[in-house]
Amino acid sequence: MGKPTALGEFGRIAKFFAPLAAGQPGALDLLDDAALVECPPGERLVVTVDAMVEGVHFLSDDPPDLIARKLVRVNLSDLAAMAARPVGYFLTTALPKSRGDDWLARFADGLAQDQAEFGIALLGGDSVSTPGPVSLTLTAFGRVAPGAEVRRSGARPGDLVFVSGTIGDGAFGLEAARGQLDERLDPAEVAYLADRYRLPRPRVALGPRLSGLASAMMDVSDGLAGDLGHICAASSVAGVIEAARVPLSPAAARLGRLELALTGGDDYELLFTASRAQQDAILAAAAAAGVPVTPIGRIEAGQGVQVLDAAGQTMALAGVGWRHF
Amino acid sequence: MGKPTALGEFGRIAKFFAPLAAGQPGALDLLDDAALVECPPGERLVVTVDAMVEGVHFLSDDPPDLIARKLVRVNLSDLAAMAARPVGYFLTTALPKSRGDDWLARFADGLAQDQAEFGIALLGGDSVSTPGPVSLTLTAFGRVAPGAEVRRSGARPGDLVFVSGTIGDGAFGLEAARGQLDERLDPAEVAYLADRYRLPRPRVALGPRLSGLASAMMDVSDGLAGDLGHICAASSVAGVIEAARVPLSPAAARLGRLELALTGGDDYELLFTASRAQQDAILAAAAAAGVPVTPIGRIEAGQGVQVLDAAGQTMALAGVGWRHF
Repeated sequence: MGKPTALGEFGRIAKFFAPLAAGQPGALDLLDDAALVECPPGERLVVTVDAMVEGVHFLSDDPPDLIARKLVRVNLSDLAAMAARPVGYFLTTALPKSRGDDWLARFADGLAQDQAEFGIALLGGDSVSTPGPVSLTLTAFGRVAPGAEVRRSGARPGDLVFVSGTIGDGAFGLEAARGQLDERLDPAEVAYLADRYRLPRPRVALGPRLSGLASAMMDVSDGLAGDLGHICAASSVAGVIEAARVPLSPAAARLGRLELALTGGDDYELLFTASRAQQDAILAAAAAAGVPVTPIGRIEAGQGVQVLDAAGQTMALAGVGWRHF
Repeated sequence: MGKPTALGEFGRIAKFFAPLAAGQPGALDLLDDAALVECPPGERLVVTVDAMVEGVHFLSDDPPDLIARKLVRVNLSDLAAMAARPVGYFLTTALPKSRGDDWLARFADGLAQDQAEFGIALLGGDSVSTPGPVSLTLTAFGRVAPGAEVRRSGARPGDLVFVSGTIGDGAFGLEAARGQLDERLDPAEVAYLADRYRLPRPRVALGPRLSGLASAMMDVSDGLAGDLGHICAASSVAGVIEAARVPLSPAAARLGRLELALTGGDDYELLFTASRAQQDAILAAAAAAGVPVTPIGRIEAGQGVQVLDAAGQTMALAGVGWRHF
C-alpha cells in the first residue's frame, strides 16, 4: 500500500503516540509487542471496547480532536456505568491515506486533552492503513474493588429509576451539528446541542459514587427507553418511565419533541435503579459529583418498558433502539 | 444505516458471540457495558492489540474462519513474544452490509476453533457497521509473573540470535495464496505455503519457556532483518545475521529467493537473543515445546543489522521493513 504519510507508521507512533504513553512504565514506550497492565491487590480490572467509524459514528469533517475526545469519552462512560475508575486505554487507528500527519496531530491533541482531564494514559495500540473510512477502536481499562461493580442485572420491583444530567441532547445535537435546527433555536442553543453531541460528558465522578447504592446501571447510548429495556431484560423486571419527569435541557425542551428525546441515543448519561431507601444517599452522591440526578420512574414485576405521558397514558414510541445515522 | 443483517446487532451478539464467552464469569454474558478481568496475585496482565483490514491484511475472498483465526493468532504471537500465556480477548468487528449472517457464522466458527486450540475465551467487544471494508481489532490478554516478561531491549553484545520454525513462508505464502507460484512449485508445496500465510502458528508453547533464558524477544511480523533491527535499536546494540543459517522450509528453499525470505513478513516466528551460556537450555526448551529453534547470528556492540552471505560478505537488502500488499 506504500506509506500513507510523510512520517510512516513508526514515525507516527514515535511523534504522536509515544508522548501520550510517557510516564507509563507498563506501556514500555510503545516499543514492545505488548504492554504490561498492573492490577493492585484488592482491585479488579474493568475493560470495555467501543469503535467509531467515519460516516457512521462521526462526520467526515468533524474536527479530529473532537473525534478523539468522543472516542475516549464513550468508553469512559461505559466504565462509569460499571462504577469503575478509568486508568488507561489501548487505541487502534485504521486511517486512509487522505488523512495526513496534520489530521493525526490534531487527533493526538484531542487525546492529550482528555488524558489530562480524566487522568488516563495511552498504554498501547496498533496503527494500520485502510482503503476505507477512518475506523477507530479504543479499549479502556478501569479498576473497581471486587463486588463494587454495578451491573445491569440487579434491578428489583419497587426500585426507582434515575437518570443523570439531561436526556435527548445527543439526538438533537446531531441535528444541530448538521445545521438542521438553525431556524428553530437561538445560535447559543444550537451550539450547546451540537457540543453535547460532539463531546459527551462521561459521568466518571458520579459512577463510582453509586457503588453500593445503585442496584443496576448502564449508560444511555442507544436511547433512554431502549436502554431501560436492556436493564429490565437483564434483571427480569418491567420498567415504567414518567415522561414528564425526564430532565430536558432548555434547548431540548424548546424543541418539544419528547419522543426523540426518549428514544434518541448518544446521551452518555447514567441510567440506574435503586431502592427508595437509597434516594437520599443518591442525591448526596450526585451533589458530591456535581451532576444532577433525577428520579424518572419505577421498576415493577413483569417485563418490558412502558412510558407514561403527563396524563398517565401509555405513549407509543416508534423508534426504540437508536440507530446512528 | 438500517440493520446490516437479518439478525441485527443484538441478535448477532446473542447468536454468534455470546456462545464464545460462555463459562467466563467476567464476560457477564456480554450483556453489560464492560467486562471484569481478574489478575491472580503474583501475576501481571500482558495486553496487545492488532488490527486487520480487508484489502490490506487479508483478501476479500479469504475464508472467514481463516481470517478470524489469523486475527487471533497474530495477537497470540505478540503475547508469546513477551513470554506470556494467553487467557482471553476482546473483539471489535466493523462489517459492511455485504457481509451477511452467513459470513459472520463462519467467522465465529473460526474463533471457536482457535479458542479450543489455545484455551482462550471471548471476554467482550463491540460490533459496528461500516460503509468501508471489513475492519477487525482484537485486544488479547495474557498473564506473566512480574519480571518474567521478555522485552525487546535486553540484547547484549556477545549474545546469540535465534529464530523459531522457518522464515520466509509468510511472504512466499502470500504469493502462493494469489496463485503466483503454481508454475514453480508442486501443488503440495503451494498449499503448504498458502496455509502458512493464512494460518500462522503462534509459538505459544515456546514463548513462556524462554522466560529467564532469552535476553530480548519479539515475533517476526515485519520481516526478519527489519525486526532484528527493532531489537537492536531498543537494546542499543548491533545485529549480525548469517543468511546461510536462516532456516527455510523445503518449499521456500526451492524458490531460492533468500532476500524476500529475510525481509518478507507475516512469519510469526519468535526472534530472540540469549547469551551463549543459555544455548543448551534453549534447545531443551525448544524440544519441550516441539518447535525447532536455530541460531542464526550474533549481537555486537554498535548499531544496525548486517546480513552476511555464505562467503561472509555483506548482503544489500532492498526491502527491509515489510509492507503488506
